[in-house]
Amino acid sequence: MPDKTWTRIMEEARTLFSQQTYGGTSMQQIAQAVGITKASLYHYHAGKSAILSTLVRDPLVELERVLELASLRREREERRDDVLNGFARVMIAHRQTMGLLLRDGSVHGEQTAEIRDLFQVLIDRAMDVLSDGNTGWRRKLLAAQALGAVTDPVALFADVPADELHVELVRGAHAILALRHH
Amino acid sequence: MPDKTWTRIMEEARTLFSQQTYGGTSMQQIAQAVGITKASLYHYHAGKSAILSTLVRDPLVELERVLELASLRREREERRDDVLNGFARVMIAHRQTMGLLLRDGSVHGEQTAEIRDLFQVLIDRAMDVLSDGNTGWRRKLLAAQALGAVTDPVALFADVPADELHVELVRGAHAILALRHH
Repeated sequence: MPDKTWTRIMEEARTLFSQQTYGGTSMQQIAQAVGITKASLYHYHAGKSAILSTLVRDPLVELERVLELASLRREREERRDDVLNGFARVMIAHRQTMGLLLRDGSVHGEQTAEIRDLFQVLIDRAMDVLSDGNTGWRRKLLAAQALGAVTDPVALFADVPADELHVELVRGAHAILALRHH
Repeated sequence: MPDKTWTRIMEEARTLFSQQTYGGTSMQQIAQAVGITKASLYHYHAGKSAILSTLVRDPLVELERVLELASLRREREERRDDVLNGFARVMIAHRQTMGLLLRDGSVHGEQTAEIRDLFQVLIDRAMDVLSDGNTGWRRKLLAAQALGAVTDPVALFADVPADELHVELVRGAHAILALRHH
């Protein structure tokens, strides 16, 4: 069970990564923000990429859960709505952390490639659900635009109440998917 | 005036960057693809980041030109359509190169930070046009979703004819912007 210091390390690291990018944050700065020595910090974690992995693990697990539950639905329409609403909910709840994956160019390299790949797999699975397994490029494009509408903008709206942001994100995605009937 | 070898270096570098990422491509591989020695390659360019800068210079200049011409329009509606159509046109024409900026996590670091910053400034200016200078978060969100709809998906559709892709990209963006009347 995580102790208090562990929780504070995660919180301070997330804030610092968001403020000054992942690449621009040193272990020394994280230690200083928590109020412990750098040696104690390494006692808790293997390093900076391990902290990042821990931060994104929860949202990625939640996104996977969204896809699993959606796959149990009988109706296409229900699967699509589950994915749009689920992705919007998870992205908003973890908007600071997900902003690192979406907008921080320094989150890359071999150490973090695994995290990026994992996220990409979830995006691809969501695209499949939204395009109903239809392989035509037009349907795939609508799926990409709809999924982008509920995911990409979240990091730009740090202060908007979650429920209000949720409504608007999903509204944009639905407007795009409605085009498939034309 | 660029000679034939210079043009080939650009073409081969763009292809290699797209196939195996910017970070995963060596100067040696570029030289080999062109059929010259690595020493000759350096004779043409300062290095890998200089090649990337050269590749993205044209599309970024074109995006800037789109914003300048749009700003001369009297009607908001015309400015918005100019930006959506112009961004779609430039992104599609340079979809392989723009895919590097949008999807290649290894395009980062101090050497390429300038390019990323330049692109971000253009995105921000386009967002301002699409939100009509309206500062409310809902209008800004629609602008972000609409601009994302005409830019983000391009790299996924390498083989779709430009004019057909253009129509569909802009259609999605319009569907989102139409929500502002509700």
